[in-house]
Amino acid sequence: MAKIAPLSGFPEWLPAGRIVEQEVLDTLRSTFELHGFSGIETRAVEPVSQLLSKGETSKEIYLLNRLQAAGDEKSDRDAQLGLHFDLTVPLSRYVLEHAGHLDFPFRRYQIQKVWRGERPQDGRFREFVQADVDVVGQDTLAFHHEIELPLVMVDALSKLPIPRVIIKASNRKLAQGFYEAIGIEDVEETLRILDKLDKVGPDVVIDLLAERVGASEAQAKLALKLADIRGTNGGFADEVLALGHTSALLEAGLEELVNLVDGANELMPGAIEADLKIARGLDYYTGSVYESVLVGHEDLGSVCSGGRYDSLASDGKRVFPGVGLSIGVSRILARVIGRDVVVPSRKVPTAVLIAVNDESERRHAEKTAMALRSRGISTEVSPNSAKFGKQIKYADKRGIPFVWFTTDDGEQVKDIRSGEQVSADPHAWMPAVEDLQPRLLNPEN
Amino acid sequence: MAKIAPLSGFPEWLPAGRIVEQEVLDTLRSTFELHGFSGIETRAVEPVSQLLSKGETSKEIYLLNRLQAAGDEKSDRDAQLGLHFDLTVPLSRYVLEHAGHLDFPFRRYQIQKVWRGERPQDGRFREFVQADVDVVGQDTLAFHHEIELPLVMVDALSKLPIPRVIIKASNRKLAQGFYEAIGIEDVEETLRILDKLDKVGPDVVIDLLAERVGASEAQAKLALKLADIRGTNGGFADEVLALGHTSALLEAGLEELVNLVDGANELMPGAIEADLKIARGLDYYTGSVYESVLVGHEDLGSVCSGGRYDSLASDGKRVFPGVGLSIGVSRILARVIGRDVVVPSRKVPTAVLIAVNDESERRHAEKTAMALRSRGISTEVSPNSAKFGKQIKYADKRGIPFVWFTTDDGEQVKDIRSGEQVSADPHAWMPAVEDLQPRLLNPEN
Repeated sequence: MAKIAPLSGFPEWLPAGRIVEQEVLDTLRSTFELHGFSGIETRAVEPVSQLLSKGETSKEIYLLNRLQAAGDEKSDRDAQLGLHFDLTVPLSRYVLEHAGHLDFPFRRYQIQKVWRGERPQDGRFREFVQADVDVVGQDTLAFHHEIELPLVMVDALSKLPIPRVIIKASNRKLAQGFYEAIGIEDVEETLRILDKLDKVGPDVVIDLLAERVGASEAQAKLALKLADIRGTNGGFADEVLALGHTSALLEAGLEELVNLVDGANELMPGAIEADLKIARGLDYYTGSVYESVLVGHEDLGSVCSGGRYDSLASDGKRVFPGVGLSIGVSRILARVIGRDVVVPSRKVPTAVLIAVNDESERRHAEKTAMALRSRGISTEVSPNSAKFGKQIKYADKRGIPFVWFTTDDGEQVKDIRSGEQVSADPHAWMPAVEDLQPRLLNPEN
Repeated sequence: MAKIAPLSGFPEWLPAGRIVEQEVLDTLRSTFELHGFSGIETRAVEPVSQLLSKGETSKEIYLLNRLQAAGDEKSDRDAQLGLHFDLTVPLSRYVLEHAGHLDFPFRRYQIQKVWRGERPQDGRFREFVQADVDVVGQDTLAFHHEIELPLVMVDALSKLPIPRVIIKASNRKLAQGFYEAIGIEDVEETLRILDKLDKVGPDVVIDLLAERVGASEAQAKLALKLADIRGTNGGFADEVLALGHTSALLEAGLEELVNLVDGANELMPGAIEADLKIARGLDYYTGSVYESVLVGHEDLGSVCSGGRYDSLASDGKRVFPGVGLSIGVSRILARVIGRDVVVPSRKVPTAVLIAVNDESERRHAEKTAMALRSRGISTEVSPNSAKFGKQIKYADKRGIPFVWFTTDDGEQVKDIRSGEQVSADPHAWMPAVEDLQPRLLNPEN
């Protein structure tokens, strides 16, 4: 037997943690479906050529080879497969492959594991779950989806038993228009540098801007001033214009960002803030860009990010613009499960344990269990016919609230927390609704 | 842009197919939980040394390498990771790694993708979903779980909108006892050969038994006679004994198989048949073994298989016996989705489309949608404010049953199938329960 050891970067939950994860995934899914998004799953693998065509994470791809592959297969670069590192590249491929069978605008959500060969650290994993929602149009896609999509995420996140999440938004046109207006030419590299602002601080950003895009100190300081602007309503626009550098592109982006913040906050007050520091490193964004913070856990970094892209995919004839966001589910879970911010009321689904008096009565116990299950009550039969004290201990250890007995006085059920024992009919008895399934609790609240 | 083409062996569903898959997975999960099994997920990867230590599928492992790996990492065989090819090897590792945090008997279910580098063919994939249930004991595990576990699967499968599944069972002790009693020594190889009986026929089995285990024609014919015995109650035991070769091991196995068939059929009549042809190729089974058929789709092969193993895992001090079965979910789905045996009542979750009279009224439409969603009604807002006919067409194309209008006479909702339009309050109106979510239909029934 090989040595057993945890693999760094590949988180795995005990059954109690999995109950929390499953409840979180269920809530995300049901909210996405309430907003009319169709669930899809894509295969875990994509051709490496596809994976390398987008995004800065591509360098950390896991490649696949069959153990028994013939030599020529291993060297066939076109056929080389890798594990997907996000759900956007697979969506792009899925839309192109299945476009003839999809209705546009295509509203899809996707909750799956992704893999990155990164160095594991707090909140960064090699295998983790993302939950994405995107709307993809064919040829055109209206701006109002840039207000809709972050609100879907706020709605979903607000239903989770986690601290509040605030979406912070900026706009790529605004940033590009501003950089161009102050005379900076390499907009993409400027965005990548500004994206590091929170990590490296303003002095390093000034140095990097000088070094990589040839920005003067005056230009760099203007870029930092822009990044310093934020607001919970459209009033921030005056601050942007007060910097004294404008352009048609900047004004178009500014109008969009004002509409986003005002429109979103009319529907869900406090949900979205303008924060012009938000840059996003990826070059495919063309309009709104979003990041977010988990209040009280700002050190985790963004737990939900995304943006508008005018060309998610193109087959030469058609172009598919989209807007979407992705929740880093594992990053949130590692914090809330790891620090017991959320715990389940019990660690098994079971509500009732049927005690077995004697092995000859096991069949009877099984029939009682079937009757309870047929009415939606999670039930297991005691694995042994040990003394009742031992069978109750079995239930207690797992948090199972009820033990069912067949006694000389008929069928009875005991709430082992209170000790109360009552006569009960397996075809009629129901536990209290809060005992039917494990619930999530916030021990600190 | 790289060429887009489907990858053979990596099935992917359109949104309508995914609704079927999701409903099937939900049903399996809720049934497993009703029986008191805890859900777990394990990481997709295991050390290759671990993957190679069990099972005959190990030769078709997918190995992982990081694109940017340093040379020494690539050659470090101990650190080499591969994608899991089943959920049993990961369970074994999970139990050993987390034994101190688990309660035994540990009842777990696990529904995940697995990967095998096999040549794709009908019903065989390179990426597919398995749904496993196992009970794992520490040091001991009572026989009654060998009756319980296949019944859990029958309960789960009987709730799916698929043809009936019958579990066929045999017993490893019975087979081993018989082969030894007739003088065949290499029991494992004999089982592997008998496992092929349905595929290759009796003549080839006789040849293979002669060639690989040195069986005489008389021995081979006896082995085939045993394989020919089946029964829906304990009566088959007489046929086994009538072959005239017995042993203590055979009798122990025979008693277990009689108990299994009689016990299971008392609880769920017709659920389980004894079929002594069932061999299972894997050498780790030590008691009951199970296969199954999807009635009317026997060509698919077994869709649910498993057995009892006395040593799922061991760390030298403790041994962990178990019994479990695995459903080949993708194999079933490929058949029922691929041949339209099951279709969803609509291909989106959306029940209501809110029409938009004019872009200036979009905010009002969003508020109506929020009111409906807050009461569990999946709602989307029309992506455009085109003529009503076009907005109705948008709904019709997706199968959305209701369109909501704001008219001069107030809020109204139209059932676009019947054309009926009525006044409605977004804080009170509910669709019929069968329209609330997509349902699964069997078009041929």
